[in-house]
Amino acid sequence: MSPDHILEIGYAFRKSKALLSAVELGLFAALAEGPQGADALSRRLGLHGRGARDFFDALVALKLLDRDAGGRYANAPDCSIYLDPNQPTYIGDLVEYLNVRMYRTWDLLTPALRQGAPQCGPAAAGGFEDYYADQATFEIFLKGMTGGSRLLARALAERFPWDAYETVIDIGTAQGCVPVEIALAHPHLTGGGFDLPQLQPAFASYVRKHGLDGRLAFYPGNFFEDPLPNADVLIMGRVLHDWDLPARRLLLIKAYEALPAGGALIVHESYIDDRRRSRPHSLLASLNMLIQTDGGSEFTARECMTWMREVGFGKTRVVRLAGGHAGVVATKVRGAKRRVRVGRRLPCVYSSS
Amino acid sequence: MSPDHILEIGYAFRKSKALLSAVELGLFAALAEGPQGADALSRRLGLHGRGARDFFDALVALKLLDRDAGGRYANAPDCSIYLDPNQPTYIGDLVEYLNVRMYRTWDLLTPALRQGAPQCGPAAAGGFEDYYADQATFEIFLKGMTGGSRLLARALAERFPWDAYETVIDIGTAQGCVPVEIALAHPHLTGGGFDLPQLQPAFASYVRKHGLDGRLAFYPGNFFEDPLPNADVLIMGRVLHDWDLPARRLLLIKAYEALPAGGALIVHESYIDDRRRSRPHSLLASLNMLIQTDGGSEFTARECMTWMREVGFGKTRVVRLAGGHAGVVATKVRGAKRRVRVGRRLPCVYSSS
Repeated sequence: MSPDHILEIGYAFRKSKALLSAVELGLFAALAEGPQGADALSRRLGLHGRGARDFFDALVALKLLDRDAGGRYANAPDCSIYLDPNQPTYIGDLVEYLNVRMYRTWDLLTPALRQGAPQCGPAAAGGFEDYYADQATFEIFLKGMTGGSRLLARALAERFPWDAYETVIDIGTAQGCVPVEIALAHPHLTGGGFDLPQLQPAFASYVRKHGLDGRLAFYPGNFFEDPLPNADVLIMGRVLHDWDLPARRLLLIKAYEALPAGGALIVHESYIDDRRRSRPHSLLASLNMLIQTDGGSEFTARECMTWMREVGFGKTRVVRLAGGHAGVVATKVRGAKRRVRVGRRLPCVYSSS
Repeated sequence: MSPDHILEIGYAFRKSKALLSAVELGLFAALAEGPQGADALSRRLGLHGRGARDFFDALVALKLLDRDAGGRYANAPDCSIYLDPNQPTYIGDLVEYLNVRMYRTWDLLTPALRQGAPQCGPAAAGGFEDYYADQATFEIFLKGMTGGSRLLARALAERFPWDAYETVIDIGTAQGCVPVEIALAHPHLTGGGFDLPQLQPAFASYVRKHGLDGRLAFYPGNFFEDPLPNADVLIMGRVLHDWDLPARRLLLIKAYEALPAGGALIVHESYIDDRRRSRPHSLLASLNMLIQTDGGSEFTARECMTWMREVGFGKTRVVRLAGGHAGVVATKVRGAKRRVRVGRRLPCVYSSS
């Protein structure tokens, strides 16, 4: 029995970082204009000659670049689609977020496991509002969230019966990536995004860029203090995973209250598989919540459906999205009784008050 | 075409760090004593309850742990062999080196590529001698080198015709892992290890621990300033990759001069494949040399054989070792002429003078 599996995992951070640096350096953007030899490509990216060829060839060996018989490098087919900034399928902004933030954050995994407390990110910064006060952090975070949402937003636009609804509001919308993709695919829909007031300019600019300012509006608020806006469909994507269970329940109750009878809530997350043994990505995403939040974690779709039914939702079902994400859809049935009572205002670490 | 390959690579640092932290926390050592449930294991490792189960289950999903129907965790079979500190096959010291040093070092890949200059490690510290001055750095480096050498040293002990030789000296031996494994397997051999004088205590203690102090001696020196010691077989493992081409040639010449006619030099490295497209590990290892040394890089076995023949060696051949490493064996033929002349003493950044 060889140690190859252990060594492959142990050294895997190096291949990650090669990709992350390649995006940072604009490598895939440069090659989107056409194949280039090592020297020209080095000059274009501002690389020192030493190491450049090893770097390019490492990316060839990782099947992220191709190299032809003349030694010219080109983007691999998937990189042409997803790492060319001019493609609507671009996810390089997510990769930049991994590069600038998450890679070094994970160096703090051991103390996070020992303390059970956030080491950095919104919670360590004192809440999302303080976290957003630093403009550079704010922008890289926003772009990262958008890059990480685009593909699953498109899948959600395809795989939900939008024809049956008129309005949709995305709760915790950031730049508005999710409502934008859905509105682009379904011209009859109107609605928008709800988030902290600081997000208004970023949302407005992103929505305008996509020509949707006539159909999508920004709803400012704090979802622990304010009621949620009304719409036929509410979406919460990667929101519940930031918080502990009482806060999740409160948010589900608020969504239930904001929906009309017949309305639907869609909660999309990187769900852990029910047996907690087949999706390393989700379990590692949960550790990312450990490192960055006070009480957050990933959870299973089954857990989410249980909480939804506990607060009064009727039918629940799972819709597969992209990149291992899924959406749990819960419907508010007319006259259904909520089983959990909201008897108190929850203490909230991230509250602005 | 899905973005899964890009995302798998982009996020791979998280699975690395989960393994690295597991070794740091003593997880595999604890489970080597027997299976344990999540709570007992958390207490044993000093983990906070929050995150512990996700951590263990992430390792299950990564196939590094098993979990039985009763929820008890056990080491996966390969981890029982390679990550139990009581096994002679232990490579956890290499993993600790990756955890404490290399993971964060790689956050500096982008500036290393731009500048072509080391960002940390021996070269940035002003040379190996200054690098070794910090005791904690020194120990983790030494243990890491030993952990990274043990399996290939055993393969080398098996796959070279040691019966034809009497003496062996390992150049740049650190703790002496390589000569120890070879001497353990071949009781007729004597010899030892050559390295900077600072390494003497670590070498002496490691050799004594293996009961080999009667057969293996330490040869102190600086291989750029002093002649190499004489032996039937000289070994240089992960030495040439630290230096630029003129320094590599000088070291090969010195080895040639120190060998008797009929003697052999073995150079083992993580060789890049000749077509520079099929072994990402070696190409990434070369970038590690970019980050940590002034002129180092990995290279192909064919390049190494060319340099060896240029300095006068006769036959050369490749011996496959473990973990993607290989040894290039070069024989000194009686009366052969060296094609390259040593006309000068090389300037050397790491020299002690």
